[in-house]
Amino acid sequence: MKYGFSERVKYMKSSAVRDILKVINQGNIISFAGGLPEEDLFPVEAVDNAFHKAITTNKKALQYGETEGVPQLRELLAERMKQKGLHRSADNILITSGSQQAIDLFSRVMFNKGDVILTENPTYLAALQVFESYETKVVAVDSDDDGMVLADLEEKIERHKPKCIYVVPTYSNPTGKVWSLERREKLLELANKYHVVIFEDDPYGELQFDENEAPPSIASLDENDIVLYTSTFSKTVVPAVRIGWIVGPHQIIRIMAQAKQATDLHTNSIGQHALVHLLQDFDIDGHIQTIRKTYYERMLVMKRLLETADIEGLEYIAPKGGMFFWVKLPKRINTKDLLNGAVKEGVAFVPGAPFYVSDPEQNTLRLNFTNSEPALIEEGMKRFVKVLETTNIHS
Amino acid sequence: MKYGFSERVKYMKSSAVRDILKVINQGNIISFAGGLPEEDLFPVEAVDNAFHKAITTNKKALQYGETEGVPQLRELLAERMKQKGLHRSADNILITSGSQQAIDLFSRVMFNKGDVILTENPTYLAALQVFESYETKVVAVDSDDDGMVLADLEEKIERHKPKCIYVVPTYSNPTGKVWSLERREKLLELANKYHVVIFEDDPYGELQFDENEAPPSIASLDENDIVLYTSTFSKTVVPAVRIGWIVGPHQIIRIMAQAKQATDLHTNSIGQHALVHLLQDFDIDGHIQTIRKTYYERMLVMKRLLETADIEGLEYIAPKGGMFFWVKLPKRINTKDLLNGAVKEGVAFVPGAPFYVSDPEQNTLRLNFTNSEPALIEEGMKRFVKVLETTNIHS
Repeated sequence: MKYGFSERVKYMKSSAVRDILKVINQGNIISFAGGLPEEDLFPVEAVDNAFHKAITTNKKALQYGETEGVPQLRELLAERMKQKGLHRSADNILITSGSQQAIDLFSRVMFNKGDVILTENPTYLAALQVFESYETKVVAVDSDDDGMVLADLEEKIERHKPKCIYVVPTYSNPTGKVWSLERREKLLELANKYHVVIFEDDPYGELQFDENEAPPSIASLDENDIVLYTSTFSKTVVPAVRIGWIVGPHQIIRIMAQAKQATDLHTNSIGQHALVHLLQDFDIDGHIQTIRKTYYERMLVMKRLLETADIEGLEYIAPKGGMFFWVKLPKRINTKDLLNGAVKEGVAFVPGAPFYVSDPEQNTLRLNFTNSEPALIEEGMKRFVKVLETTNIHS
Repeated sequence: MKYGFSERVKYMKSSAVRDILKVINQGNIISFAGGLPEEDLFPVEAVDNAFHKAITTNKKALQYGETEGVPQLRELLAERMKQKGLHRSADNILITSGSQQAIDLFSRVMFNKGDVILTENPTYLAALQVFESYETKVVAVDSDDDGMVLADLEEKIERHKPKCIYVVPTYSNPTGKVWSLERREKLLELANKYHVVIFEDDPYGELQFDENEAPPSIASLDENDIVLYTSTFSKTVVPAVRIGWIVGPHQIIRIMAQAKQATDLHTNSIGQHALVHLLQDFDIDGHIQTIRKTYYERMLVMKRLLETADIEGLEYIAPKGGMFFWVKLPKRINTKDLLNGAVKEGVAFVPGAPFYVSDPEQNTLRLNFTNSEPALIEEGMKRFVKVLETTNIHS
């Protein structure tokens, strides 16, 4: 039997990262490739208690629920966001099956074939996957260490008339970058000037290393209902619960809920009720402190080992939060080839090219520092540096 | 701010049933409207134990997982389906966020604008919602008590060259109908003759009232990889877990998995691992027996009360399984108007019209008998019959 697929299948790509992970996870390899949180930090007891309460307290919690999400969870989220300066009511929140679904539902209700989306370059791979599956055109804006370069942004807004600007401004994946306050404000200004919606993807915002250096979300600066903001419990509780949320203009959230109804009726509500109990009974902020401290220590270990590499032209910035180092090597080194050598040495990373919208830099790579203990980071980085130095001599 | 939405938003409809439910759930009304399983039958203790094991046994279960679903769950499902004559390997199974998502992902990878899908008339409302959101053309095939009328089916296949035939052949929603074996076989024959994929939606197949009268799924008769089959744990365990599955040709399942990766990465895996434990530790088949027995008794109560209605031209068939009675009233009665009167009397149902693809019969309605205890069914049906009789006299 030959099957006739839809046109849009042509625009669907498998994730290069997930494909690499499948190979890597098979051997005895120290992997800095995945974007995984540390399992040993999972608040197992609290999660267990929360699910137990969710399941045994009220049978209604086990029945079909509202597409928009469990009302109490949306209230608690509104409250938590308020504490971070983002004042929106529960009506402006849609609970999603991870923040990945927020990107997908948003795309579904906003984009027509050929619509332009501006993004950083490189940017979050799986967002590109979604955008491309809707046959949109993604255009890269130049950026530096502080965020998008404003002149290039304005020039590209004028030229391409984009429908949306997609950004991961806080401890981004893959670059670990954090946008300056000025760039955040200026991005908003330009979005307002040209009436372009901003989609702020913020899965890592709570993973900051310095208490006193928490940048405000772009959404919290928005006074004109022009920003949609999404985040997730995947990094602060556990990924397997698959619960994220999106907050934004009611008019858009309402239509996204309608799309969600057809897509999957509603996000699993046992998990939603469990999160309600977790937020009520568990010191999640204390827990997040522990995560921050642990990740900070691991980042420092990785940084120390990176510093030992005797490679001229090796560049990186120590991240101020999040989960990743973004490394640039001398131009002559192709990190895809490097990965083969690295895997033989028993260490893995993700080559940087797939994260680019255009003009991929083949000499870049991403290192994750959150999913390995310090001793493993040490050993893995020694292997990595060895591979680097060998390749550098031979290339 | 004025937002520019995608074209496809025009084709998104909110579910008439869910909108009705919102109104009904507010008052002190006996509702036969929703398609809800009985909460008192939820295996709370078993679910609680299963989640406890899933959360505390292995931290890997709380990490990101495979898009295709937890391998053990797919193995167990393959095993369970084998017992029902459906022989497919775990590789042919994709775990979805409820079977609703199976319909959506399938549509996403199969349908282009204008593609034709043949369905029964009436049929499952939320499938129509999905199909229409992909700008397809849904064409109704005539049907009788045994399933689609074959002559009309063949004529419409020839005329419309459909991409897919969508059916709910076993205790369907909304009609409660079950297809005869002959129609199942003939549908397959025609699908093979004209190379049209069949999508078999089977959420109710396990809810049969007579042990010895279990019709084989169409998928189990398929020898040419032409049928996709989807089912769910919503009716046999609890809806809130939002876990369904789809089994079909590997080529289609693989591309659906790719689409799912962009959509929501993977279905919540705490729930998936919990279902693994539930299937291993709990007598789910014994539990399903209890559900069947309870629903059968409730169906009989409703039937007995329906029989008391003194209305010429009232028609219904006692269902052999599932959750619904489909009732036809004299043509002069519009059930949408009837609902207003019924709600005033303290009873609710769903008018039949929204379930139709075309030529809606305004004198039809759906009654759910699974979500109310016998005493409530008795009281609710007395109110319903009273409203019917009053309306009948006055109309």
